[in-house]
Amino acid sequence: MDSIEKVLNFIVEIEKLKDVQRQTRPVGLQRYENSAEHSWHVCLSALMLKDYANEAIDIDRVIKMLLIHDLGEIDAGDTIIYASETQQLKDEEAAGVQRLLNLLPDDNIAEEYMALWYEFEAGESADSKYAKAIDRVPPLLHNLHGNGHSWSKHDISKQQVFNLNSRIAQGSEKLWSVMAAKLEQAVESGILKPE
Amino acid sequence: MDSIEKVLNFIVEIEKLKDVQRQTRPVGLQRYENSAEHSWHVCLSALMLKDYANEAIDIDRVIKMLLIHDLGEIDAGDTIIYASETQQLKDEEAAGVQRLLNLLPDDNIAEEYMALWYEFEAGESADSKYAKAIDRVPPLLHNLHGNGHSWSKHDISKQQVFNLNSRIAQGSEKLWSVMAAKLEQAVESGILKPE
Repeated sequence: MDSIEKVLNFIVEIEKLKDVQRQTRPVGLQRYENSAEHSWHVCLSALMLKDYANEAIDIDRVIKMLLIHDLGEIDAGDTIIYASETQQLKDEEAAGVQRLLNLLPDDNIAEEYMALWYEFEAGESADSKYAKAIDRVPPLLHNLHGNGHSWSKHDISKQQVFNLNSRIAQGSEKLWSVMAAKLEQAVESGILKPE
Repeated sequence: MDSIEKVLNFIVEIEKLKDVQRQTRPVGLQRYENSAEHSWHVCLSALMLKDYANEAIDIDRVIKMLLIHDLGEIDAGDTIIYASETQQLKDEEAAGVQRLLNLLPDDNIAEEYMALWYEFEAGESADSKYAKAIDRVPPLLHNLHGNGHSWSKHDISKQQVFNLNSRIAQGSEKLWSVMAAKLEQAVESGILKPE
């Protein structure tokens, strides 16, 4: 098969990410978000918040990371982040990303992006700490601007929200301090239960 | 207002792109595509097809261009590409992009991305010729894999498809030659009318 044909097959196959439903509704919409539009949203968010990263980051690598970070959900599905992330789920996602990248004609490219996906998952490098921080922001904004719809549906408390999202500070302390203040306001206004 | 607050307002406002409906259905889906998920799709497509660009390109600039290329549709809406693109529509889109970028705290960033949007629209630089080529690929794939649903709905002929999409060759001759062959096959199989 021609190399371009192989890339086109990849392009058609990844389109399935548009059919993976997430756990929150975009601000102003009644439907739930899908993982493809979320991926666009976090890329542009990362770009515009890059000056608030704790450490020096390579924003172009961060964007590539975010473009592919959810591809594993095509085979494994999206799970709510407050559920425990099991090793089995992570293995399923990794296998799914590998399956997609194997469609590409260039093994080096497939290896490069598989490594980038693992780097994001590990969340240990400066780029991945920042990328993971950004990934958590839109669902919080959806709840903050959407009457806490996902928190109440899943019976999530302030403590759970803080336990999970305080990791935003690992990528950007400034961003977390702003988000934490908003979450405190959400508790005061009654859309996030205190405990 | 705090600078981060301003960026967060931008992040919430651009979310409206998830509610702009396009003219084709993603492969395998019954619903129409929205411009946010399309933006993600073309970014990742551009990344994986970059070696087929005619000229040397800066893929990181191309991706930034594609992340913002449809923001004007939030205020102006999406129109079918086979309709004539009037100056009035382009002016509305430019004003819409400017309105969004004005939400950002840094005027230099706003200027930089406004210039990048105009560069994409002009389609004269190597980066924008390639970005525009990639932007045309997914709707063709949607029709090719989706029984020509948008072509038949809008009564589009092979000549119209070729007139508009042969511009893909300005960004990548190799990509256009593969797409043109697929379009010829679509005529033979009867999903694209010859004239």
